[in-house]
Amino acid sequence: MTEHIIDPSIVAADNTRREADLRRDYETLGERLDRRGIAIDAIKARVAKFSVAVPSWGVGTGGTRFAKFPGKGEPRDIFDKIEDCAVIAQLTQATKTISLHIPWDKADPNRLKQAASRFNLGFDAMNSNTFSDAKGQIQSYKFGSLSAYDKATRDQAIEHNLECIEIGKTIGSKALTIWIGDGSNFPGQVNFADQFANYLESAKAIYAALPDDWKVYFEHKMYEPAFYSTVVQDWGTNYIIAKELGDKALCLVDLGHHAPNVNIEMIVSRLAQFGKLGGFHFNDSKYGDDDLDAGSVDPYRLFLVFNELVDIENRDASFHPAHMLDQSHNVTDPIESLMLSASDVQRSYAQALLVDRATLKAAQTDNDALTATQQLRHAFRTDVEPILALARLEAGGAIDPLATYRASAYRAKVAEVRPAVEGGSGGIV
Amino acid sequence: MTEHIIDPSIVAADNTRREADLRRDYETLGERLDRRGIAIDAIKARVAKFSVAVPSWGVGTGGTRFAKFPGKGEPRDIFDKIEDCAVIAQLTQATKTISLHIPWDKADPNRLKQAASRFNLGFDAMNSNTFSDAKGQIQSYKFGSLSAYDKATRDQAIEHNLECIEIGKTIGSKALTIWIGDGSNFPGQVNFADQFANYLESAKAIYAALPDDWKVYFEHKMYEPAFYSTVVQDWGTNYIIAKELGDKALCLVDLGHHAPNVNIEMIVSRLAQFGKLGGFHFNDSKYGDDDLDAGSVDPYRLFLVFNELVDIENRDASFHPAHMLDQSHNVTDPIESLMLSASDVQRSYAQALLVDRATLKAAQTDNDALTATQQLRHAFRTDVEPILALARLEAGGAIDPLATYRASAYRAKVAEVRPAVEGGSGGIV
Amino acid sequence: MTEHIIDPSIVAADNTRREADLRRDYETLGERLDRRGIAIDAIKARVAKFSVAVPSWGVGTGGTRFAKFPGKGEPRDIFDKIEDCAVIAQLTQATKTISLHIPWDKADPNRLKQAASRFNLGFDAMNSNTFSDAKGQIQSYKFGSLSAYDKATRDQAIEHNLECIEIGKTIGSKALTIWIGDGSNFPGQVNFADQFANYLESAKAIYAALPDDWKVYFEHKMYEPAFYSTVVQDWGTNYIIAKELGDKALCLVDLGHHAPNVNIEMIVSRLAQFGKLGGFHFNDSKYGDDDLDAGSVDPYRLFLVFNELVDIENRDASFHPAHMLDQSHNVTDPIESLMLSASDVQRSYAQALLVDRATLKAAQTDNDALTATQQLRHAFRTDVEPILALARLEAGGAIDPLATYRASAYRAKVAEVRPAVEGGSGGIV
Amino acid sequence: MTEHIIDPSIVAADNTRREADLRRDYETLGERLDRRGIAIDAIKARVAKFSVAVPSWGVGTGGTRFAKFPGKGEPRDIFDKIEDCAVIAQLTQATKTISLHIPWDKADPNRLKQAASRFNLGFDAMNSNTFSDAKGQIQSYKFGSLSAYDKATRDQAIEHNLECIEIGKTIGSKALTIWIGDGSNFPGQVNFADQFANYLESAKAIYAALPDDWKVYFEHKMYEPAFYSTVVQDWGTNYIIAKELGDKALCLVDLGHHAPNVNIEMIVSRLAQFGKLGGFHFNDSKYGDDDLDAGSVDPYRLFLVFNELVDIENRDASFHPAHMLDQSHNVTDPIESLMLSASDVQRSYAQALLVDRATLKAAQTDNDALTATQQLRHAFRTDVEPILALARLEAGGAIDPLATYRASAYRAKVAEVRPAVEGGSGGIV
Repeated sequence: MTEHIIDPSIVAADNTRREADLRRDYETLGERLDRRGIAIDAIKARVAKFSVAVPSWGVGTGGTRFAKFPGKGEPRDIFDKIEDCAVIAQLTQATKTISLHIPWDKADPNRLKQAASRFNLGFDAMNSNTFSDAKGQIQSYKFGSLSAYDKATRDQAIEHNLECIEIGKTIGSKALTIWIGDGSNFPGQVNFADQFANYLESAKAIYAALPDDWKVYFEHKMYEPAFYSTVVQDWGTNYIIAKELGDKALCLVDLGHHAPNVNIEMIVSRLAQFGKLGGFHFNDSKYGDDDLDAGSVDPYRLFLVFNELVDIENRDASFHPAHMLDQSHNVTDPIESLMLSASDVQRSYAQALLVDRATLKAAQTDNDALTATQQLRHAFRTDVEPILALARLEAGGAIDPLATYRASAYRAKVAEVRPAVEGGSGGIV
Repeated sequence: MTEHIIDPSIVAADNTRREADLRRDYETLGERLDRRGIAIDAIKARVAKFSVAVPSWGVGTGGTRFAKFPGKGEPRDIFDKIEDCAVIAQLTQATKTISLHIPWDKADPNRLKQAASRFNLGFDAMNSNTFSDAKGQIQSYKFGSLSAYDKATRDQAIEHNLECIEIGKTIGSKALTIWIGDGSNFPGQVNFADQFANYLESAKAIYAALPDDWKVYFEHKMYEPAFYSTVVQDWGTNYIIAKELGDKALCLVDLGHHAPNVNIEMIVSRLAQFGKLGGFHFNDSKYGDDDLDAGSVDPYRLFLVFNELVDIENRDASFHPAHMLDQSHNVTDPIESLMLSASDVQRSYAQALLVDRATLKAAQTDNDALTATQQLRHAFRTDVEPILALARLEAGGAIDPLATYRASAYRAKVAEVRPAVEGGSGGIV
Repeated sequence: MTEHIIDPSIVAADNTRREADLRRDYETLGERLDRRGIAIDAIKARVAKFSVAVPSWGVGTGGTRFAKFPGKGEPRDIFDKIEDCAVIAQLTQATKTISLHIPWDKADPNRLKQAASRFNLGFDAMNSNTFSDAKGQIQSYKFGSLSAYDKATRDQAIEHNLECIEIGKTIGSKALTIWIGDGSNFPGQVNFADQFANYLESAKAIYAALPDDWKVYFEHKMYEPAFYSTVVQDWGTNYIIAKELGDKALCLVDLGHHAPNVNIEMIVSRLAQFGKLGGFHFNDSKYGDDDLDAGSVDPYRLFLVFNELVDIENRDASFHPAHMLDQSHNVTDPIESLMLSASDVQRSYAQALLVDRATLKAAQTDNDALTATQQLRHAFRTDVEPILALARLEAGGAIDPLATYRASAYRAKVAEVRPAVEGGSGGIV
Repeated sequence: MTEHIIDPSIVAADNTRREADLRRDYETLGERLDRRGIAIDAIKARVAKFSVAVPSWGVGTGGTRFAKFPGKGEPRDIFDKIEDCAVIAQLTQATKTISLHIPWDKADPNRLKQAASRFNLGFDAMNSNTFSDAKGQIQSYKFGSLSAYDKATRDQAIEHNLECIEIGKTIGSKALTIWIGDGSNFPGQVNFADQFANYLESAKAIYAALPDDWKVYFEHKMYEPAFYSTVVQDWGTNYIIAKELGDKALCLVDLGHHAPNVNIEMIVSRLAQFGKLGGFHFNDSKYGDDDLDAGSVDPYRLFLVFNELVDIENRDASFHPAHMLDQSHNVTDPIESLMLSASDVQRSYAQALLVDRATLKAAQTDNDALTATQQLRHAFRTDVEPILALARLEAGGAIDPLATYRASAYRAKVAEVRPAVEGGSGGIV
């Protein structure tokens, strides 16, 4: 039986106050959708199956190179983090898995598994870390890890990834995500070709150790922490890596890792068309890799990404990308941000399901750009909140996760047992 | 015998005034390079062999969507353009070929060949045009060409490319460059996957007709004229195209076709490393595809591109990328801009040849970022003008092409026979 | 009595089919808003008063420097354009004025006034044009206009603006909008300080001729048509101009004229706080000054701008910014795009009116970022279409302007009397 | 007498090996400049007077939010930092002052003054810090400082700035630099107008306490650490602040704090033209506020900034902007980076002095863009290293500061007495 961290009576109390209005809104929305030829229950059923992973580090307060301002009741270790993730899952019913970061979350794998299973949580992709030095580490990653000029450093970085796979095997993960900060800060600091050759060699060594039923996701990023060049700088390089390695190697798209103005939904389409779209790190951004809450700055962009995903799903039933939130919560309670972000990701999915694809295709074929784009806008401006809320209610979650969470006073309670931190744990995204 | 448009006595007169100073500067530069272990004559020899193609449309005045302000004595047709190109070649001795754009330059191929050979000029890559409608064309390219939903339109666009190949065969070209504006202005206007599938199918049809000793260059561009999505939007898509087609298909890099902040020299390296770097369209830009004179806004970026090219040359003697200027001359005399741009491209090449690659490699291997980057800066800040100027002089060109050109009063002379235009020819880049 | 171009029976026929559903949707939306403490009729009343000007040049097909692909039945002159604008006004009831561009729209002012008054249309700001050369013009603007080094050129540009004021006086306009392309394409081409001093001197001369009840709006733009520097490049320079000139000088914000990633809504706030916000040119963009349909790429950004405008309105009842659409319709029927854009601008205004400003302020004061941002999101995701549609219906417009317009076959009808163009009129934005 | 940290005999030894070549190069450069009508000694004299401040925090290793990789022998406190700065000053003779950051550098002011005067170093602008929480601070700056909604927080931030002025008075500083991170991470989190009103009120309180012979410099930045909006986001807002406060308030330009593609040299010109240019934080960047070494990525941009500065100097002899390096040295020895950066800033100044301003002005007036831009390029491509090196030699510095520094083994020596750090001091830029 699934344990509940938030007292179910608190959830029920808030739900009770809202249920009648919700059912009324669901009914009138259903009526409007019905006129458009859409069965609201079918949409709800697909939404109910949707899940996005929560990264363990996301429940800690994030910061910048200038400062980190810790919040109250910050998780002290991975077990506190799992509890915070369980709260998110309980109230949203949309986050069924956790994604770990090694060595930050290193602990006895069996204990990890047990801790998660109490809350019926699974483990998503494992994340290795060779972008910072762990305590006691022999070689430093100051000048690179998987692509470093120094072979001992590369070997250590490969070894670390193999360890992540081993931990993952025990806890039931089926994928490894590799993001590194390797690059350079000065023209000439590295030779691009040599550095990438080193990278590919290391990646192949990791790939060779990957279990048959695993995937490995490569994540590109334009810049930061390297400020002149980055070894896996864009989807082009990412595609080459996945292609050179083999079928288990796929590309992961983080919405904040692109050059200004880039059309991200088009990259999503290209990678899928050539069989290399692995999944997403969802967040939002205005300037660089700002790691803001998904959908908080440009919600239409998030919708357009899901418009592609639904199109791909419709063409290929076997398409199951890995979805994860990857955000830095610098000024909000991370649990609150993650709940609402999970909901906003789900919202985009629901809206994308409303697109009338037959009309869209006809308009495209007829070069009727206005009708085509109106199909998307019409779907996007439909307020699907009643669908999401009813799906939550039916699964045992909260109609209004934020209100219920605040009513539960969870943060104040854990703050009593979790000592205040200076500079705080987690927060690196 | 090569005909000369500018009276050789004018060239000689200006050269005579400058030669002594030039030889003195060449000598003291040689002395300084000698101290760095570099033989100046060897650099000069490599520079002398360097050539960059001039695009026929570049000798007309360019404009924007807001206005075009014609210059005096604009070329009336391709034969006037060839004469303007001959002036550039005569004075700079660095532009041995012309690149044609069909249908703008359509004429009897044999006459074209003859016109160019008078000035000992060859023909570089052929450029097809399916981004605007030619007079009398049956299908419009308003909604796309090679990737259009409409099959008749795609077929017409393929046909046009085949025609370009045919013309090219007669005049001695060995390559076709394909750049199209296909894309969309609204989310949803096109289905990305379908549009790209259409594009690939069309590209394959053209590839099938390519002679064995030809190359086809694909050119990507982030945006413009399409403002929401572009079918060949970046090097990732370009790489996929070249890979899907075969060995004769290569990627062409235009320096102004990238997202803001993108590290272009790294794209150059990646494409070369995977055998798909075909060549360049040189220009400079500050905002978008501004098509400013090469090296006029960020000369170090141009140098860093050549730093990669020299590195590739050193690794692979068979590497011979196609170099072309592709600029829009809105406020200058196009001949003047093209002469100086050819010279600035050559300058970057010469400077890149000065990099001490053994020291660079040692610094890279030692993670000595500062020494590494200083090797590049040292090469870049060397004023190689005496090398370029002496190479020109020795080949029969002008020590100071701009001064000689102005002394010749060429523009005023052609203005007498070429009537003023309203809105003018050419100018589209 | 207002003449109607679209047969009112066609409008009525389409409305009749939709009215019952609309009233039902308006009622259930009213119910939901009522729960949030919002009276739907009050919102409708404010929406009904909202108007955005249509630019005369917007009804022609736009293009790029690469090509323009004309549409069917393009307007031949300003009188055709006024008729097209009348169609937009009739169906949307949201575009009560037209904005003219001189010399493109030059005609007998009294005839202009009469033509517009047939349709009960007024004239918004006059737009001068010194970014291209008119036929027969003595001085060319190739090297600048109001800021040119050449005094005769500056004087001619000033004179042109004075003429625009004169025409405007006759037709009932109360404002002049000045946007120029002056700048430079090369570092060093102009001295920034001298050029700006020239600009200010010219602007003062125009200002001196401005009637007391007029405003002059200055429009900044980062780049294009000048590609290295632009004399009024950003809101900082624009603010200085407006400040140096006086109370009748205000800044105009075009949504596409900013650097990548810039927070435009913040500029709106700053200009308003210091009394210098004059109005807007609405459109949307993904890359540069793409002039796409307002709200088509980033609808939340448009909402955030209106969120500021409603906040300013609430603080200052005398605040009446000038709203205009400024778009380039390259692939759609311009009338269709303008109708939907007017509607999307109105939509953003309606959504911004829904923000619970008391709750927002409390959340801001409490540093409760999540609650604050949710107030905006909640308003934004409310589908206010029933409010817009009922406001249209009540004012005599169409519930669904696009459907009604297509049913009317207006374009096909005018295509019969308006000959096809090559390259077409208008289209410059 | 000035103490020397690097044994003068080491400096002399390296200089001796290089002096003959240097004098030879200076002589031949002088000859070339003479032909251009430039007296090399006059240039050297102006270069010798040029100084750029070193920020105390710059001598520590920098990092990113992901990691910081400490270097060897990192300074432990401000007194170690002063010694490192003294090394830079000794070898480059181009960094005569240090800029302190409070509270990082807090110490007995008299002891600070004494420590610096040993090396004949002065103190540049004082830097306050309200972008992170100091230990034991009562109010947190998590939600803002000078612009916070909470008055007690604003008062504390004002108080801190007043304390910085007090310390500065004792040590001989004459300016305060204010940069804050205040802004927001979510649309709606703050009300832009209220936040800026708070900011202005706080700034006025600080201004009121400023001694008559002091300046206060305000620094704008587009984003980071706030990722949706920043209270002093651009030069427009900065200008308003300086204007609202009074004559002692000026704007400071950090080269990395702008939107992508922005023309920074134009901002420099505008601020100077309206009397509000206070000074610079020099660094270079490719993506965001990368804080790379000045001139390492785009040296021509740095030159173009100095081209403006020399132009302003020539117009106004009283113009004395405050120059400071502000960089983050993540992969290099900070002393090495700062020495070469000081030299690159100086180089840009020297090159800008070579511009033939009479010819430039004539070309501008004649709309001869090509000649104008060639004046700048010609100056820029002149290798002025012999001028810089001889100026250093004559002032007692090193011909080749990097070689001399390495020969001195300074870093290894201090590493012996300065214990290794985990995560390290400083590094925040």
